[in-house]
Amino acid sequence: MKFVRVSYENQIYEATIHGDDVSFIEGDKYGRWRYTGEVRPLDQVRLLAPVKPEKVIGIGANYAAEAEELPETLPDLPVFFLKPSSSVIGPEEDIEIPEPVREVIFESELAVVIGKEAKNIAESDVYDHIFGYTIGNDVTAPQFFHEDGHWTLGKAFDTFTPLGPVVETSLRPEEVYVKADINGVETQNSPTRLMIVPLAPMVAYLSKVMTLQPGDVILTGSPLGAHFVKDQDIIECKIDEIGVLRNKAVRSTVSIES
Amino acid sequence: MKFVRVSYENQIYEATIHGDDVSFIEGDKYGRWRYTGEVRPLDQVRLLAPVKPEKVIGIGANYAAEAEELPETLPDLPVFFLKPSSSVIGPEEDIEIPEPVREVIFESELAVVIGKEAKNIAESDVYDHIFGYTIGNDVTAPQFFHEDGHWTLGKAFDTFTPLGPVVETSLRPEEVYVKADINGVETQNSPTRLMIVPLAPMVAYLSKVMTLQPGDVILTGSPLGAHFVKDQDIIECKIDEIGVLRNKAVRSTVSIES
Repeated sequence: MKFVRVSYENQIYEATIHGDDVSFIEGDKYGRWRYTGEVRPLDQVRLLAPVKPEKVIGIGANYAAEAEELPETLPDLPVFFLKPSSSVIGPEEDIEIPEPVREVIFESELAVVIGKEAKNIAESDVYDHIFGYTIGNDVTAPQFFHEDGHWTLGKAFDTFTPLGPVVETSLRPEEVYVKADINGVETQNSPTRLMIVPLAPMVAYLSKVMTLQPGDVILTGSPLGAHFVKDQDIIECKIDEIGVLRNKAVRSTVSIES
Repeated sequence: MKFVRVSYENQIYEATIHGDDVSFIEGDKYGRWRYTGEVRPLDQVRLLAPVKPEKVIGIGANYAAEAEELPETLPDLPVFFLKPSSSVIGPEEDIEIPEPVREVIFESELAVVIGKEAKNIAESDVYDHIFGYTIGNDVTAPQFFHEDGHWTLGKAFDTFTPLGPVVETSLRPEEVYVKADINGVETQNSPTRLMIVPLAPMVAYLSKVMTLQPGDVILTGSPLGAHFVKDQDIIECKIDEIGVLRNKAVRSTVSIES
């Protein structure tokens, strides 16, 4: 099932997609919900970020280039980072490149959406706590990384976490390919089985550190091929079973120079 | 005015403190609110974290030891970090030390509570966007810092951000002293005027990166004297004009070893 959040006649609705229509729902999509009976054509609504996460958690360099490069044991301590909820945007919204920099890095990623509170769960229980999957673009301005290695600022700008277009609840995450096109040219295309820290141990580990809540998003890392994009570039992050998350990069009106 | 969140007869209320009583309020404490008329003795309610932030933002080493050490110009890029909302606890709740480590670092800090959405605001407008001030304890398990310098995991554990006991809306933040006692012995006591990046430029800068929302919390850094604490230590973070944020460190039942 494909869940979306949509804007229609200046109101925001939760809905599911059926063919070319969206069916509005009410209640808690992570728990009990039902159809309201309202159905609208998909092309008459605007898709928003399909979830409103309180936490967005990312993982550093998490893809091997090819299967032979995958390590035999998991790394002791992967690099995890947090992105603020204020950085989330939806499909077709612009990614704003903060002045004075002129380029930012895009990264197409499989994004896990938590469905059930998860605290100290076992790897074998991870899938029971996942609601579904969407596509995330982990945008970064490494020019704002701190010289001591801290990434937070460089990943925290408003518009730096496009999510969407839908949350697919019936995906097999280990069987999909994470892709990206820049201005129509394919630059990323790797199977999720090249993840260094796979999804189940990643989520189980995180749940030992912090309680994961319904709607929280985990960006599972980006494969080979991410690079800088500039003003007016079109970034399309793709996972065939989920859809296309399309955003344009533009220059921001906000300057970070003090 | 001192704002609190309290638990009373298994319900959660927003309230203000007047002498030895709490007066329940309704509405939006950052906007329009009014008294419900219900008043309870302070000693019959349990104080919770006084705000439920979506974002908790911290700043790295931000205090000089003495005035002569303050730099003449602001550092280009301070270290900012995010803590997850899941790490927030209130007064008297236990700080859980994650196995297998046996010690964590406490840091007493002045915590800014945002009251009005702030996006790209000028330094001169910062105080118009602040609701009030509370005390934060930025707990850290540096054993979980990544060797490449990333702090996120080491600061993200559940219980690692005690906040409270109240939000004081009429504080002069540049005139207070940030203090801490460990097991009754004073270990921190510095004036906020020793901050390297002062409050106004700090909040203005952050608002250029990310939109700050009502309830968001900014931990403004900890003065000299923070150190490791262990199981059963009592940490009292103090700012006289706000109160005492008291928590005990205990060993967690959750082990992070994989």
